[in-house]
Amino acid sequence: MTKSTKINQAGITTGPFPSSRKVYEKGSIYDIKVAHREIILSDTKTTDGELLKNPPVTVYDTSGPYTDPDYQVDLEKGLPAIRQEWIEERGDVQQLDDLSSEYGRMRLADESLDHLRFEHASRKPLKAKDGKVVSQYYYACQGMITPEMEYVAIRENQKIQEIKEKYREHRGNCYGANIPDKEVTAEFVRDEIAAGRAMIPANINHPEIEPMIIGRNFLVKINANIGNSPTTSSIEEEVEKAVWAFRWGADTIMDLSTGANIHETREWIVRNSPVPVGTVPLYQALEKVKGKVEELSWEIYRDTLIEQAEQGVDYFTIHSGLLMRHIPATIHRVTGIVSRGGSIMAKWMLHHHKENFLYTHFDEICDILAAYDVGVSLGDGLRPGSIADANDRAQFGELDVLGELTEVARKKYVQVLIEGPGHVPMQGIKENMDLQLDKCHEAPFYTLGPLTTDIAPGYDHITSAIGGAMIAWQGTSMLCYVTPKEHLGLPDKHDVKTGVITYKLAAHAADIAKGFPGAQFRDYAMSKARFEFRWKDQFALALDPETAMSYHDKTLPEEGYKSSHFCSMCGEHFCSMRATMEVRELAKKLEERSAEFKESGGELYL
Amino acid sequence: MTKSTKINQAGITTGPFPSSRKVYEKGSIYDIKVAHREIILSDTKTTDGELLKNPPVTVYDTSGPYTDPDYQVDLEKGLPAIRQEWIEERGDVQQLDDLSSEYGRMRLADESLDHLRFEHASRKPLKAKDGKVVSQYYYACQGMITPEMEYVAIRENQKIQEIKEKYREHRGNCYGANIPDKEVTAEFVRDEIAAGRAMIPANINHPEIEPMIIGRNFLVKINANIGNSPTTSSIEEEVEKAVWAFRWGADTIMDLSTGANIHETREWIVRNSPVPVGTVPLYQALEKVKGKVEELSWEIYRDTLIEQAEQGVDYFTIHSGLLMRHIPATIHRVTGIVSRGGSIMAKWMLHHHKENFLYTHFDEICDILAAYDVGVSLGDGLRPGSIADANDRAQFGELDVLGELTEVARKKYVQVLIEGPGHVPMQGIKENMDLQLDKCHEAPFYTLGPLTTDIAPGYDHITSAIGGAMIAWQGTSMLCYVTPKEHLGLPDKHDVKTGVITYKLAAHAADIAKGFPGAQFRDYAMSKARFEFRWKDQFALALDPETAMSYHDKTLPEEGYKSSHFCSMCGEHFCSMRATMEVRELAKKLEERSAEFKESGGELYL
Repeated sequence: MTKSTKINQAGITTGPFPSSRKVYEKGSIYDIKVAHREIILSDTKTTDGELLKNPPVTVYDTSGPYTDPDYQVDLEKGLPAIRQEWIEERGDVQQLDDLSSEYGRMRLADESLDHLRFEHASRKPLKAKDGKVVSQYYYACQGMITPEMEYVAIRENQKIQEIKEKYREHRGNCYGANIPDKEVTAEFVRDEIAAGRAMIPANINHPEIEPMIIGRNFLVKINANIGNSPTTSSIEEEVEKAVWAFRWGADTIMDLSTGANIHETREWIVRNSPVPVGTVPLYQALEKVKGKVEELSWEIYRDTLIEQAEQGVDYFTIHSGLLMRHIPATIHRVTGIVSRGGSIMAKWMLHHHKENFLYTHFDEICDILAAYDVGVSLGDGLRPGSIADANDRAQFGELDVLGELTEVARKKYVQVLIEGPGHVPMQGIKENMDLQLDKCHEAPFYTLGPLTTDIAPGYDHITSAIGGAMIAWQGTSMLCYVTPKEHLGLPDKHDVKTGVITYKLAAHAADIAKGFPGAQFRDYAMSKARFEFRWKDQFALALDPETAMSYHDKTLPEEGYKSSHFCSMCGEHFCSMRATMEVRELAKKLEERSAEFKESGGELYL
Repeated sequence: MTKSTKINQAGITTGPFPSSRKVYEKGSIYDIKVAHREIILSDTKTTDGELLKNPPVTVYDTSGPYTDPDYQVDLEKGLPAIRQEWIEERGDVQQLDDLSSEYGRMRLADESLDHLRFEHASRKPLKAKDGKVVSQYYYACQGMITPEMEYVAIRENQKIQEIKEKYREHRGNCYGANIPDKEVTAEFVRDEIAAGRAMIPANINHPEIEPMIIGRNFLVKINANIGNSPTTSSIEEEVEKAVWAFRWGADTIMDLSTGANIHETREWIVRNSPVPVGTVPLYQALEKVKGKVEELSWEIYRDTLIEQAEQGVDYFTIHSGLLMRHIPATIHRVTGIVSRGGSIMAKWMLHHHKENFLYTHFDEICDILAAYDVGVSLGDGLRPGSIADANDRAQFGELDVLGELTEVARKKYVQVLIEGPGHVPMQGIKENMDLQLDKCHEAPFYTLGPLTTDIAPGYDHITSAIGGAMIAWQGTSMLCYVTPKEHLGLPDKHDVKTGVITYKLAAHAADIAKGFPGAQFRDYAMSKARFEFRWKDQFALALDPETAMSYHDKTLPEEGYKSSHFCSMCGEHFCSMRATMEVRELAKKLEERSAEFKESGGELYL
């Protein structure tokens, strides 16, 4: 890997996963190619020495071109703009001559920032033509199937057509959702988006993304938060962390940077991100007024929205639902307001004694978002920060307002997500899901866990994966990951991976429970490999092959043990799988002399 | 710490947890002292500089005397026999002149083992007097409250009487269980045991234990498996691992050793264990026939039961429910029989073409167990080892038999646990719980997870904590932990800790969800400390103080940051809790000029 002039890409992890290759599946409506990861398995050796093929396992792949050995990574150029033509061909966008945001123009004019700037930023921003709406929601409502919609349909299926006859699945229990029986079609995608039950975050200024869909009737998605905090870290580290998060399975990332040069950092991240990028524009707006909450204004915020929309951010968390009337209900909470955005707006409201400007200007916000197809993720500024505060009047009062705002956004054809908690004890989780579906008209729910206990700092990826798996099963569309550093400090690269893998497994457990078609196939292949002592196949099928292999090798590192019929957990003589193989051999022999067998005691068998 | 002649105890971790001390609560019926851990918190500083006391938090403590600084640990002597008098005073036991087990006598006579032997093994074994039954279940059925029963009642309450007015709790949802409203009484304990819904594992030859109770209407317990496999490890390492497991929260341990000298290793473990010890006697029986399954016999097994019962093992996993008629249903499973005991017995049955001797001799097994008060944990030899095999005919067929055996054991006054899966997708978990309660007459359920997906080796402590938390909420009484090494290798000390903490948090999440009285108090105290930036209190209240502190200190190691009003996660200016404090100050000021406030816009408030 060459060291480039502005950014050292030596820290970027590339290359395929073990036994895996990137495959591209063609569309039937559009000329698109949808990326999957295919895991190639070794043969099964029968006891007679016969070799039986195991079909490859196609899995959802968020890693982008970084895992394609045929692709030459160049962070300075950014990723290929695969959606550029799709966007242009719709004929509803205009290329602007200049950035619309004052701040964006100021940063661009500042030569002292040249050394930080993404080189190929020369692409002019796109915006909807006057009078046009360019959101996937709008298209869906018009009955249009876009290339993005066909892409996600193919992607969700993970080549199910090749496996569906190969194994049996448990029936799911999807709590009244409308999970497709057999496979996802482009028509189904369109219908779900038109109903507001799903969204494809896809800013027209982020043509680099491989489209993905967030909705209750699709695979559960996960988001990884990255971004520096004032105490840390360089552009390089943030881009490295982002690529790392894609690799392990982040379906979207949120750049929550609050430090210096966030405008430039974001440009690098967006240009190199194959997954949608979300932000909380309020954080940057606050940076612009040097952290003085009282100096925040609609004008500064508005300019920030436009600045980020023209960079290509795909969804914004906006805390429009927290109103003055909710604040008193937070005063006697154990942990008050734990959403950063929520606490900022509460402070602003009390200082100015005015209603939340994100609420009073929500119409204008939607107009801006609609012109770029930026989704709105309605922030839960009053999410509970402790078990004690869960499901209280403050939280559910805000949820009511999020429901109203959903209707406003839909009228403007803005795609909507609803953010959810937080800290909720298990017995209170379903109430959150039920109320959200009801009040927010089935708009996709996007929760942070929830954490099911407060007493395990250092393990909050786990306390929250429990709640996350449950609420995803019940209908949440995307889970925002929590890392082991939650409540304690800024996550490093290792924490990001732990958070992503933990949430992948929680989301997958929910996909199985919902009965999403084909979801159990990877489990089936894994367990078959396990039973047949195909260790390398087990590692390849694992969400984290590196860790699985390193744990195995800790006690039995020699290559020979990769084909041995036991591991150090039980040892050779106590391996139940090995014994079962012998049981099967014995049973086979017994069957062979079945007549005798039936006479002498076969009545014991079913 | 002195190095002793036979065993190096330098590896044993002792000493109290941060800000914690051991407290002993007296009984009101018996002269007993019940150990708790008390976490002492610092004061709350109000914005006016006032100091407000925070009450100490009393928590359940499984660590035994090892965390009592006044206790001098000596592994060679073992722990104090706190139950000795209680047992003797009941007047129903006899002291035997010699070990009853042939194998036990043989090992004792073998001088070549002297260097391995626990010194103070001179205590003669106890056994019920002829015609007497000595189980807690028997006593409960007779209407007796034993010191063990009073002990567990006080222990379960965690001094709730001192906190109940101090905070509000969410209502639990206990799925029809009979969780006490306010506190656990000794009478309630007796009633639950008499109903067979709970058990106190308490072998009369294990007087060192601090009694604990396993039942649906009590706190959820966790078990940690330890024990060497043939590839590893010394007596010292196993004792060290056991003490380590107690420290972090193991309510019981199972010694699953399969290597050399398991008789002697077990003696060291039992004599130094303040928690009940379980085993799978079949493993040792198999060692005795050098791993040749076909040579196993009832006689060898019987001698092993007696050998271990006289050492003080508190419960035995016995795979009596797996019958010949079940085996065909396992042949087409993806992962066959994954229980070690189950696969051994299946092999034995097929080889001899005879019914499972653990079933045909179950009456005699119960007679032996009743004479020492060893509990029977009816093993699920056919638990599913993959999502694919969950809830199948084999599994539920065996469960039927476990129900029958429960009735047999109860007639003999043997305390019963029922073992459960395994690998189960989330939507199939409740069926397991419902069937178990129904078929096994509410005997306490003891599950291994269940794992909710197969595809995350290296993270199976998490895939299973999800299922474990759910099934514990639904009524499972004890969870058998799973470590990150599951399916990959033998866990080391670090893995044991990760497994224990993960299961503690899952069990705790379930206690909250069930609405166990007082369960939320530690969460409340933690969140209050968090909101008030009492960092040291947060560490002290954490299930794993060491890890919480080390994560915090990774970015902000200086001592000053232990009282700072932010952490590196969000940084100083973006800390929501800090902002909330300011919100409260503002709100307070507004309230102070409330008249003006009401005129000018107070109508916005609720």
